Amino acid sequence: MKITSISFKKTLYSYFEPFTISLGSHEEQENVEVCVKLKNGIEGYGEASSLFVISGETAAMLEKLHQTVEDILIGKDVESYANLFHDLQTLRATPAIKAAIEFAIVDAFCKQFNMKPYQFFGGSKNTLETDKTVGIENLENTIKKVKRIYDEGFRKIKIKVGRDVKNDIERVVKSKEVSPQASFIVDANQGFTPKEAVEFAKALYAEKVDVVIFEQPVNRYNIEGMRFVRFNSPYPVAADESVFTKYDALKLVREDAVDFINIKLMKSGLSDAMSIVHIAQAANIGLMIGCMGESSIGIRQSIHFAAGTGAFLYHDLDSHLSLKEESFRGDFVQDGPFIILE
Amino acid sequence: MKITSISFKKTLYSYFEPFTISLGSHEEQENVEVCVKLKNGIEGYGEASSLFVISGETAAMLEKLHQTVEDILIGKDVESYANLFHDLQTLRATPAIKAAIEFAIVDAFCKQFNMKPYQFFGGSKNTLETDKTVGIENLENTIKKVKRIYDEGFRKIKIKVGRDVKNDIERVVKSKEVSPQASFIVDANQGFTPKEAVEFAKALYAEKVDVVIFEQPVNRYNIEGMRFVRFNSPYPVAADESVFTKYDALKLVREDAVDFINIKLMKSGLSDAMSIVHIAQAANIGLMIGCMGESSIGIRQSIHFAAGTGAFLYHDLDSHLSLKEESFRGDFVQDGPFIILE
Repeated sequence: MKITSISFKKTLYSYFEPFTISLGSHEEQENVEVCVKLKNGIEGYGEASSLFVISGETAAMLEKLHQTVEDILIGKDVESYANLFHDLQTLRATPAIKAAIEFAIVDAFCKQFNMKPYQFFGGSKNTLETDKTVGIENLENTIKKVKRIYDEGFRKIKIKVGRDVKNDIERVVKSKEVSPQASFIVDANQGFTPKEAVEFAKALYAEKVDVVIFEQPVNRYNIEGMRFVRFNSPYPVAADESVFTKYDALKLVREDAVDFINIKLMKSGLSDAMSIVHIAQAANIGLMIGCMGESSIGIRQSIHFAAGTGAFLYHDLDSHLSLKEESFRGDFVQDGPFIILE
Repeated sequence: MKITSISFKKTLYSYFEPFTISLGSHEEQENVEVCVKLKNGIEGYGEASSLFVISGETAAMLEKLHQTVEDILIGKDVESYANLFHDLQTLRATPAIKAAIEFAIVDAFCKQFNMKPYQFFGGSKNTLETDKTVGIENLENTIKKVKRIYDEGFRKIKIKVGRDVKNDIERVVKSKEVSPQASFIVDANQGFTPKEAVEFAKALYAEKVDVVIFEQPVNRYNIEGMRFVRFNSPYPVAADESVFTKYDALKLVREDAVDFINIKLMKSGLSDAMSIVHIAQAANIGLMIGCMGESSIGIRQSIHFAAGTGAFLYHDLDSHLSLKEESFRGDFVQDGPFIILE
């Protein structure tokens, strides 16, 4: 069935509370919604969401690719999705919009065959457990928010670190005291030097903090530094900003640089995300899945992908929980940390 | 939809003419047909075909896995195919039966959603061009058969070599004279030493033979030898027997050992074949697809996979052309070298 139109729509969201990571603070999130329409009226949806400090994309610039994307897709058959994915690789500078378009294509393809996207991806499960994230805050607010999240039922808690080693150690150690059954993902967003990262990890280990993932401790391009942290830290080290494309993933495998990869559709598009799953599984590297600032219509992309493939040990799919939305537009039920596909 | 039964059926085929490779000669081919039946009556088909000298599998032993496979699959939902593929990884010693079962699952899944398997795999194209193969024969018969194949319209011709360098050089060089527009795949099936392989390749190059792939020149476990041939031969070197699993593929990538991988569903199953496609694409390694001794019902597995993914530069899908079959059971049209999916 041929693609007859593609529409882009910019949407602005406010965070319930300002959200700070080592790279910067955010109070708003601007996304681009994508709708791919087929000749028979079927519509497939996607959403592009990026943090400029991470991927260099803005909603305003993504919107300007509309004509380019129309030129690639209009008149093409949605059943030839592998060809469309191939042609969309030209969107190499803008993986967020590539992700949204590729998912919208799969969404339309699935509707065409009366199939759910998570079945297309392999139908592994229909329930996921996500973590919830606390940004960089002072000690008091960190503990308050960790406790709140813990009381909401979350047992995987992500804490942003990477600005001040001593302070970050204290923030995580004290957080443990108010959430005794929780496991932690600590995410430095490139903020540490390799030696700071090792100091940080060893200090938490000495305090018996249950850290399941230490994300992106050092600069994304410092592959040698990632490997140093991996081999000198007691916790599994995950690449996030270091891996956008499948080529990045293979390079890290060849360099023995990481224990885990954090796949985000917004960094890789659906096509490279699929490849990274296969590469990581062949390399015995663990997988988590994360998000940028997707709303409920966007986070469903990662939910279907993660549930279908069943490839991820940890799910960090909480962006929609932090944004004010006029209405919930997911095709899933959120029950505390649990996400249930209908 | 739940799987309610799985049936295995051994079938014996005769080759039109005895077929010789460096590892041995064959006059017959025994395969195992698989039928996966769903509760609603839908049936998915697969076929396992192996050459004992390559994979150590026999039809008789594959048949004995029937109960094991039933234990894994009966009562499971075909829509959860990723889970089923995961569980079928226990068939690690017998990739041919794994391939047949995995394809039968996909075949049933696709029928459930009224989709063609090649659409499931990406719908890249519906026409492929295959080569046709000449086994190890004396010079006279080699030339006679190459000419016959060329006259049938094939422009990609595969010639088996690997028993005698001087003789093989003469066989290929003289073959070129009777098929001026043909490109050649030369396949040693591990028969050469690394230095013999380089001698062979350089001799053909000096005679300006258009060799597009030099397959498995040396022993499957001699990865260092494969790399030696790769870096000392003017032609692209492909791994065949060296790559069964995705782990094998990643290892060869890490060792910079090959230019191409020859994927065969019968070596990898569908699941590892998919992974190898992703790994090779991330590593900028070329792909060809080959076969064992599949009949028309079995070769369609590779046809759908290759047409859907569009991942292969060369197709060596000719086994069904060499077997005597009571009736043609493919869902494709064979027109000389062209295979057209209906």
